[in-house]
Amino acid sequence: MSEEIKNEEVVEEAVEAAAEEVAEETAETTEKSELELANERADEFENKYLRAHAEMQNIQRRANEERQSLQRYRSQDLAKKVLPSLDNLERALQVEGLSDDVKKGIEMVQESLIQALKEEGVEEVVVDTFDHNLHMAVQTLPADDDHPADTIAEVFQKGYKLHDRLLRPAMVVVYN
Amino acid sequence: MSEEIKNEEVVEEAVEAAAEEVAEETAETTEKSELELANERADEFENKYLRAHAEMQNIQRRANEERQSLQRYRSQDLAKKVLPSLDNLERALQVEGLSDDVKKGIEMVQESLIQALKEEGVEEVVVDTFDHNLHMAVQTLPADDDHPADTIAEVFQKGYKLHDRLLRPAMVVVYN
Repeated sequence: MSEEIKNEEVVEEAVEAAAEEVAEETAETTEKSELELANERADEFENKYLRAHAEMQNIQRRANEERQSLQRYRSQDLAKKVLPSLDNLERALQVEGLSDDVKKGIEMVQESLIQALKEEGVEEVVVDTFDHNLHMAVQTLPADDDHPADTIAEVFQKGYKLHDRLLRPAMVVVYN
Repeated sequence: MSEEIKNEEVVEEAVEAAAEEVAEETAETTEKSELELANERADEFENKYLRAHAEMQNIQRRANEERQSLQRYRSQDLAKKVLPSLDNLERALQVEGLSDDVKKGIEMVQESLIQALKEEGVEEVVVDTFDHNLHMAVQTLPADDDHPADTIAEVFQKGYKLHDRLLRPAMVVVYN
């Protein structure tokens, strides 16, 4: 073999190697964008996961708050509907000439109803000075020195609240 | 330059190219595992996201079911506590010598309580043949031809249920 041919072969090999190198570089570029894509996908799902996780905690928190509120005010509707019975019992006790037995019986029912409501968080609205959040003025009287404005003259019908929530206002006569 | 030196240079170049090739292959291997890692990370977060999403829907479904159940049985506690008042009103109506006015008054309270409970889903337990799911036998009488077993002889105290849920069983005397 002449030196020239040897030389040519060597050169050919070098050229081939260079070509392979380029091919690899191209492959590397393709691979890099594949890697980029994979990374993008990973980032995307990581973000989706983090959002879903946060949303899950929000849903759980809201569900807990709602449950607590439902529990706290669960007796609201029945309590509201029971109040007229309590009014009627009070009115019945004001009837003249009740026998002691009947009076005692009515009082017993009244007390047990009030107790049942109390255990569920229902209490009478305090009637002190007039408060438009708790009282409804069904009649007014002119205020004077003995009866300053906002003094309550009479309670027509008791008001009730369930915890902090008003079930019905007290119907009052107020000086103003 | 001698042919030998030229040749050596060419060979050197080829060797360098080969070395680069190996280095690239190594880099390629590293890159492949980087890609694999990225894909694994993407798969992992995809799974995490899908699980979180499914869990979120479960939490939402459970919260809805719980809300519905809380709504449906919300009056349970107050209703249970109101029942003794209803018993007392019934007993009061059985007292001899009530005036018509008093009787009417008591009946009015009784009806309004029953109505309030009914609107919240509370109803009397039917007392037909003895059913241990709804009735409690407080006394038994020997069954005979006129009174077959499981016939109810008397109701001591009415039972009540809230929708499908028993609030308290009816207290009965039963033949058996």
